[in-house]
Amino acid sequence: MKIFRKLRLHELLYNKKDKRLAAAIKLMVGSKPLNLSLFKLAVRHSSAAEEIKHGVKASNERLEFLGDAVLGAVVAEHLFIKFPYRDEGFLTETRSRIVNRESLNRVGQKIGLSNIVESDLSGKGLYSHKSIYGDTLEALVGAVYLDRGYIFCRHFILTKILSPYFDLDNIITTVTNFKSKIIEWSQRENKEVEFFLKSVTGTQRFKEFTIELKIEDEIFTEGTGSTKKKAEQEAAKNACEKLKLAL
Amino acid sequence: MKIFRKLRLHELLYNKKDKRLAAAIKLMVGSKPLNLSLFKLAVRHSSAAEEIKHGVKASNERLEFLGDAVLGAVVAEHLFIKFPYRDEGFLTETRSRIVNRESLNRVGQKIGLSNIVESDLSGKGLYSHKSIYGDTLEALVGAVYLDRGYIFCRHFILTKILSPYFDLDNIITTVTNFKSKIIEWSQRENKEVEFFLKSVTGTQRFKEFTIELKIEDEIFTEGTGSTKKKAEQEAAKNACEKLKLAL
Repeated sequence: MKIFRKLRLHELLYNKKDKRLAAAIKLMVGSKPLNLSLFKLAVRHSSAAEEIKHGVKASNERLEFLGDAVLGAVVAEHLFIKFPYRDEGFLTETRSRIVNRESLNRVGQKIGLSNIVESDLSGKGLYSHKSIYGDTLEALVGAVYLDRGYIFCRHFILTKILSPYFDLDNIITTVTNFKSKIIEWSQRENKEVEFFLKSVTGTQRFKEFTIELKIEDEIFTEGTGSTKKKAEQEAAKNACEKLKLAL
Repeated sequence: MKIFRKLRLHELLYNKKDKRLAAAIKLMVGSKPLNLSLFKLAVRHSSAAEEIKHGVKASNERLEFLGDAVLGAVVAEHLFIKFPYRDEGFLTETRSRIVNRESLNRVGQKIGLSNIVESDLSGKGLYSHKSIYGDTLEALVGAVYLDRGYIFCRHFILTKILSPYFDLDNIITTVTNFKSKIIEWSQRENKEVEFFLKSVTGTQRFKEFTIELKIEDEIFTEGTGSTKKKAEQEAAKNACEKLKLAL
């Protein structure tokens, strides 16, 4: 098997479509796939799933489950080593800024997954495939892990995903807890700061919260976000800027 | 460094307490630690944390963050390979049955972490250290990972945690969705099945839900659990048994 792989004899069996996929994977991952079928599966969105057995459909969802876990572990280790003096709350928050649907979706698009994803999204609402590239990116990580093992996969994640597409310094700045900054300030200055939920708009799945920050009962800033917490952070950040607090 | 480790010269520097810890780790992990300081940190609960730098305390919480991620990845891969025809919903649910606070706590106690954990729980409520052994088990996984790498750590997890302490067959049976079983039955038999929340007791953090399952408006079974979903499952399971439905 090893010699077969070394000589890349399996590539002789590739059809045109396979060759195209293998070339695309090489660009993204840094080397050609050993087991192309893993990557064929990784780029197959559930909307284009094939029934392989009675009631069992083959799509990238299982690989996504695996890739999500491997990605979580690799990013955890990276942050653990990079920030030896930060507590687990900081590590958890920083990781969730990296590994979340929005950012993975963005990266998935940037590395060109839109060119190779197989999907059938006709007749589906916009939201049902909003995270298709992020999901596929996770599935790709799962495929790389199974194809090449942990060490290779870790290297792939760190050099091809994390380092080019995430500005850690920037992420860390925003992990700064603006809410606690403004509360510290209020205690120092002896002012009363309060957060009020002004409105919630959007659909069930994609809500937008608007928070008002009041200082001494007067509206000082506002913030919006997809969660109450994010909206509060945004409002607090705006207040910090307005008050010219050093961050 | 390698020869130093090979000859185990570092063990000459162990004091009595170190020797005891190294021996305990050997029993749990299967081989002696290379870097004992990782394990010293892993067994230090936050209640017994040492201040190592202004405002920075050294406890096992950071290692717990790392170990949690590694454990998640290893269990994900194990289930992915073991159940090639099950969907990601099943994999996710099965993993959460394995990697959860209660079960990790139980395993942590069973492998003897209570003998080596350093904690200072005087004056703390019972609940604040309820998951101390589960947390320490995760920290131990993190320490093994850093000490020996992924392959060794995966082997440790599979052979020393998963295989001896988790009965996968049993877990899978309970992952069977009893609620959907009973709903299928109701549709087949044309009976009306409903779930009612009867009561919620306990404290804010440790609630107990009781659910009544009614068939044709008559109470048929009851179930309790720490979440509404679990209580429903329990009620549905009891109903399946009472109705002698094949599972």
